[in-house]
Amino acid sequence: MIGRLNHVGIAVPSIEDAKATYRDLYGVPADAITETKELPAQGVKFAFVNLANSQIELIEPLGADSPINNFLEKNPKGGQHHVCFEVADIYAARDDMVVRGAKVLNEPRIGAHGTPIIFVHPKDSNGVLIELMEMPKAAHG
Amino acid sequence: MIGRLNHVGIAVPSIEDAKATYRDLYGVPADAITETKELPAQGVKFAFVNLANSQIELIEPLGADSPINNFLEKNPKGGQHHVCFEVADIYAARDDMVVRGAKVLNEPRIGAHGTPIIFVHPKDSNGVLIELMEMPKAAHG
Repeated sequence: MIGRLNHVGIAVPSIEDAKATYRDLYGVPADAITETKELPAQGVKFAFVNLANSQIELIEPLGADSPINNFLEKNPKGGQHHVCFEVADIYAARDDMVVRGAKVLNEPRIGAHGTPIIFVHPKDSNGVLIELMEMPKAAHG
Repeated sequence: MIGRLNHVGIAVPSIEDAKATYRDLYGVPADAITETKELPAQGVKFAFVNLANSQIELIEPLGADSPINNFLEKNPKGGQHHVCFEVADIYAARDDMVVRGAKVLNEPRIGAHGTPIIFVHPKDSNGVLIELMEMPKAAHG
């Protein structure tokens, strides 16, 4: 089953402008907002706003083929794009989704947190695009 | 400043169907999903899906004047409707929003968790409707 709500993904035309919203309007300390990085394989730039219990993931299109371009054409100012839940094992989760009749959109691939992820089609979750993310393994001392 | 990500609000045409999604597809235990309640003053029915660190709030229109009806006309299957952050004091937060130039959509009123809330216009937050919710006061023994 799903565990923590890892993050809410918000697609924006400009990550730098969106960082300013969380910093200047909502008072998130600058050091709680991560540097912007690129994930060329997924056609996105991203940064995280770290809250006490979860994260906002800001995503901006990277390249003409970015899967976010279509979303921003429909929502030019940006908007909520997906919700990400943690799972213990991404392959087990993928198999569960398939057995239960949901449409998995990709083979497990490495996501923004460095662990494998899948996306489940919005039609299977009341119109919401769901990301499932294998939780990072605990560090061993 | 904002504290915890209290919940993600998801508007759906049927809360009962949406509960089934979280229970049957994503494996959330039935006792982690709250009973459906009504908030007539806000024109919604709601229920919470309790996750380890946060919540999904399922909202369904209640009545012909529900503010959710318009959203569901545009998104008939449902979709992500708002993100709710906790604040220590709703009146201080409201004043901060106004001073910083954001459009607050309502006077503080009691929300689904029994504490006062406000909504901030999506135009001020990269297309995302933001709810600010005064955190519940800790119980004293």
